[in-house]
Amino acid sequence: MAESEVNIHNYHVDLGVRSYDIHIEPGCLDGLGQEMAKLFARPTRCMVISNVTIAPLYMQRVRSSLEQAGWAVSECILADGERYKTMESFGLIMDALMESKLSRNEPIIALGGGVVGDMSGFAASCYRRGIPFIQVPTTVLAQVDSSVGGKTAINHPHGKNMIGAFYQPKLVWIDPKVLTTLEMREIRAGIAEAIKYGLIRDPDFFAWMQDNEQAALDLDADVLARMIHTSCRHKAEVVMADETEQGQRALLNLGHTFGHAIESMTHYSTYLHGEGVAIGTVMAARLSEQLGYAPEGTETSIRACYQRIGLPVAVPQFSATQWLDAMGHDKKNVGSRIRYILLRGIGDAFLAEDVDPDAIIRLIDSFRHG
Amino acid sequence: MAESEVNIHNYHVDLGVRSYDIHIEPGCLDGLGQEMAKLFARPTRCMVISNVTIAPLYMQRVRSSLEQAGWAVSECILADGERYKTMESFGLIMDALMESKLSRNEPIIALGGGVVGDMSGFAASCYRRGIPFIQVPTTVLAQVDSSVGGKTAINHPHGKNMIGAFYQPKLVWIDPKVLTTLEMREIRAGIAEAIKYGLIRDPDFFAWMQDNEQAALDLDADVLARMIHTSCRHKAEVVMADETEQGQRALLNLGHTFGHAIESMTHYSTYLHGEGVAIGTVMAARLSEQLGYAPEGTETSIRACYQRIGLPVAVPQFSATQWLDAMGHDKKNVGSRIRYILLRGIGDAFLAEDVDPDAIIRLIDSFRHG
Repeated sequence: MAESEVNIHNYHVDLGVRSYDIHIEPGCLDGLGQEMAKLFARPTRCMVISNVTIAPLYMQRVRSSLEQAGWAVSECILADGERYKTMESFGLIMDALMESKLSRNEPIIALGGGVVGDMSGFAASCYRRGIPFIQVPTTVLAQVDSSVGGKTAINHPHGKNMIGAFYQPKLVWIDPKVLTTLEMREIRAGIAEAIKYGLIRDPDFFAWMQDNEQAALDLDADVLARMIHTSCRHKAEVVMADETEQGQRALLNLGHTFGHAIESMTHYSTYLHGEGVAIGTVMAARLSEQLGYAPEGTETSIRACYQRIGLPVAVPQFSATQWLDAMGHDKKNVGSRIRYILLRGIGDAFLAEDVDPDAIIRLIDSFRHG
Repeated sequence: MAESEVNIHNYHVDLGVRSYDIHIEPGCLDGLGQEMAKLFARPTRCMVISNVTIAPLYMQRVRSSLEQAGWAVSECILADGERYKTMESFGLIMDALMESKLSRNEPIIALGGGVVGDMSGFAASCYRRGIPFIQVPTTVLAQVDSSVGGKTAINHPHGKNMIGAFYQPKLVWIDPKVLTTLEMREIRAGIAEAIKYGLIRDPDFFAWMQDNEQAALDLDADVLARMIHTSCRHKAEVVMADETEQGQRALLNLGHTFGHAIESMTHYSTYLHGEGVAIGTVMAARLSEQLGYAPEGTETSIRACYQRIGLPVAVPQFSATQWLDAMGHDKKNVGSRIRYILLRGIGDAFLAEDVDPDAIIRLIDSFRHG
């Protein structure tokens, strides 16, 4: 079997009328137009949403593929970065959609990382009360996590992802070859989200990631492909079991209650999302040990893994009040309680509904410098 | 049977997990808190969204009812009018929700007319990717139409209801007694939307409305109750058959393709929605006659009915280009075609997919003054 065939994977996300495929294939970017022609009765108009970093690299190839398949393509190019995942950017997308006069049956294509995907998906969910959208993720983070599962959103100044929708794409089209143009920092941050599946539900995958972390950082094609398709399989399984996060889907938020607070307190300008999640996961691991759920050494093992990859693990210094405030706005907050995803050990996460705020204050204190 | 019991009606809108009740009962406003206590496991926090006209009249009664049932109530009071159904108002609601820290299980209550209901429902669909919401409609238009069925939206400067979601309420709680404080103009506009059900699918109801239009204008309790519950029954039937407007729900847009264009061209500041729909329905009736679908006299009969009620029927003067532009942005536009709801006669509407734009230009010309 040729190497490229080994690395072709297809997962069907079965959600009834909202079902779709995740297709992973090195070089598939140029086949997007043809695939979309199969999905839609006839090619008409579409809009590709991207950002100023990704568009110069891949827009022309995507446009050519679409136009050759008969699509009329318009574009919407946004600023790059989590701090632009705002109501203002959402307004710009809406203006572009109105300008293009896209109808209810004509799709948006999200070409970019998690920010582009989240905003494009939310825009697709709202414009004319919902039009189709396609995810073409171009970062590790988006390929292993955010492009699958239909969580779309923009940030509010006081909380991440507070304005959004559960809205599934019609197709997730993943070309791992596009990762070769990524900055190393983006690659490291994405690997953190892949490791998350190991920590939550697959200890063998965590062990495999530890054995192959250097190869992943070197963008070894086979290692990347396995990392991506294993992640997508886990994500698809969880989403099929709990599409709107009534239960087990919340486990995917391991490290996110702290991570979102870190991103929010630093105004989305200091840490990449995956970096915030890495630090947050170290915090969740220590909390799990402190509360007697996880065996000693769990935090150390996770921390060492992140450090070898080159991810930040130092907890930024804010007051306990700042932390609690920032987490009180987290979506995982039910009523007055704050929900935490904790570990019983590597590969075994669970949802703790009733963590005492005092335990959180002690945790924060234990990370104080000096 | 006491008069009040005659006028109590309950319809169950069966949409699987999104099912809910429409309850119509004179004086039921004061029972809202008790009813909500039945719907939620335990009363926690909620937010009532209203506007500067309605809040002074009914907020205190709603608040008392909720607080007596154990709810902690916060408020968000918006400006009054369709021209405030904007991204800016949506942002104000989001700010209020973030400030109140409402969690995923705590509801929004929309206390007001169609604008308040549409914006509140859209905000509920987006905040934390969806929280429960309750419709407490206070205008005729909202009680006979917009509060039922889950169409939520805000306007874009270039098109009405272009940003929104299909998002069903958990309850529609209708107290016809609150209509006594409405301005006559609002009552007339709401009656136009009730008459719509007669024109689309119920000629007997159209005849009954003609016989009872003066009583409706005089706010006769029995006539209002019958007008509201018949309208809600029709709306519920159509929504159950076609929740997301893939087919027959589009018929409810009779008069709306022209009506939305009228509202948009006059910047939402000249006509109430129901007034725009009345004019638009006269236009749709003439188009139906011109294309040979409806018998001669259809337009005359509808026009006369509206005139007796005191609704505007004169078509505002814009160029054909302005009309087509304004309608090209209408949600009923599939691809390059514009879809129109036409009549085969009173009580028999249908969807025409392929109306020649030249026919529209001839129609516009036929309404030219002088």
